Amino acid sequence: MTNPLVTGYDWSPDRGLGLVRDIRVRWALEEVGQPYDVRYLSWGQQKEPAHRARHPFGQVPTYEDDDFVLFESGAIVLHIAETWPGLFPEDRRGRARAIEWMFAALNTVEPVVWEHLRAAVFEQGEDWAKARLPGVEARLSERLEELSARLGDAEWLDGAFSAGDLLMVAVLRYPSTADMIGAYPNLAAYVARGVARPAFVRALDALRAGQTGAAPAGWPQ
Amino acid sequence: MTNPLVTGYDWSPDRGLGLVRDIRVRWALEEVGQPYDVRYLSWGQQKEPAHRARHPFGQVPTYEDDDFVLFESGAIVLHIAETWPGLFPEDRRGRARAIEWMFAALNTVEPVVWEHLRAAVFEQGEDWAKARLPGVEARLSERLEELSARLGDAEWLDGAFSAGDLLMVAVLRYPSTADMIGAYPNLAAYVARGVARPAFVRALDALRAGQTGAAPAGWPQ
Repeated sequence: MTNPLVTGYDWSPDRGLGLVRDIRVRWALEEVGQPYDVRYLSWGQQKEPAHRARHPFGQVPTYEDDDFVLFESGAIVLHIAETWPGLFPEDRRGRARAIEWMFAALNTVEPVVWEHLRAAVFEQGEDWAKARLPGVEARLSERLEELSARLGDAEWLDGAFSAGDLLMVAVLRYPSTADMIGAYPNLAAYVARGVARPAFVRALDALRAGQTGAAPAGWPQ
Repeated sequence: MTNPLVTGYDWSPDRGLGLVRDIRVRWALEEVGQPYDVRYLSWGQQKEPAHRARHPFGQVPTYEDDDFVLFESGAIVLHIAETWPGLFPEDRRGRARAIEWMFAALNTVEPVVWEHLRAAVFEQGEDWAKARLPGVEARLSERLEELSARLGDAEWLDGAFSAGDLLMVAVLRYPSTADMIGAYPNLAAYVARGVARPAFVRALDALRAGQTGAAPAGWPQ
């Protein structure tokens, strides 16, 4: 098999923080020790027909090997975890619970994280943003508190580090969330453990090294 | 094995529309022909310790068989699709693409659907709701248009009906979204095909039959 081919941007939308979802796929491939290649898209190319054929919503990442194409970071991380050992427990039930945390990260936690990011950052200049923010913060706090209560003093969410932890840590890395995580020291330590993993460090370094292109005109720096 | 045990509410938050996420699990079990039992929760019980032990975020559905407990509707539907035939293609790559559509439903489409539901319904009385709504509608429209373009004149998203279609149809059923789907006749027909499936009809009938309890005081009817 040729190396898997991942798509990412050739520029940084976030000043090198590596918050775009291709970090999840890069991290997963680093965890399982599988080399990969990257197809870099410059600004706008993600919405062009060639990339739309790979990704109907015109985003990154995608994943290709030979004639097989996948989009959705969750589905790609799951595919990686099933293809190479290292991100799923070996027993069927442990694997189902790792998948449960993958969906919890993307369908229960990420929506409130994104809602907060949108309200606190993207929409902060709108007239109505300030009045709306407390409700948004309350929804995020509730989820963080619940997650903190479940994690307790465990190192990872369910036994050894899994694809579920990978996605949960990735979701909790958004800076507007990070500001709120301070109230939950066990969650802050959990995220810190995640990003200290050598595979994450390699993934982030590689992502940054590929961001050689220019941001689109008018992009906030 | 004893029948799987699913949790749902004993009352209807949506006047019998069956929009709470246990419909997804009931529907999946009906599709694969697996009988199941239901543990009904009255209002408030979902936040009590007994249920928190099953579901850290205090929601429904959960899934249990023998000593195995799962939460997250996406993870449960995936587990069902892997345990009984009928919701995944048999080949590995087709299965990965069905999983891709599961994540697309829950991580790309549902967040904008929920954002719209919140803005158009839950928050409609707020001072700032009206000024904010156009942006919310634009985000949902963009996703619906992209999904419509990818579906084209196909019956389902990728070959035969799969767990990916099940979750996508479930997500598109929210009424505030249904109002907007009229602009995309192929999506409207796709949702209509989904809810006409005998397994969905059985699931919805069973859900309604179990909603014998009272709504909490003050719940809008």
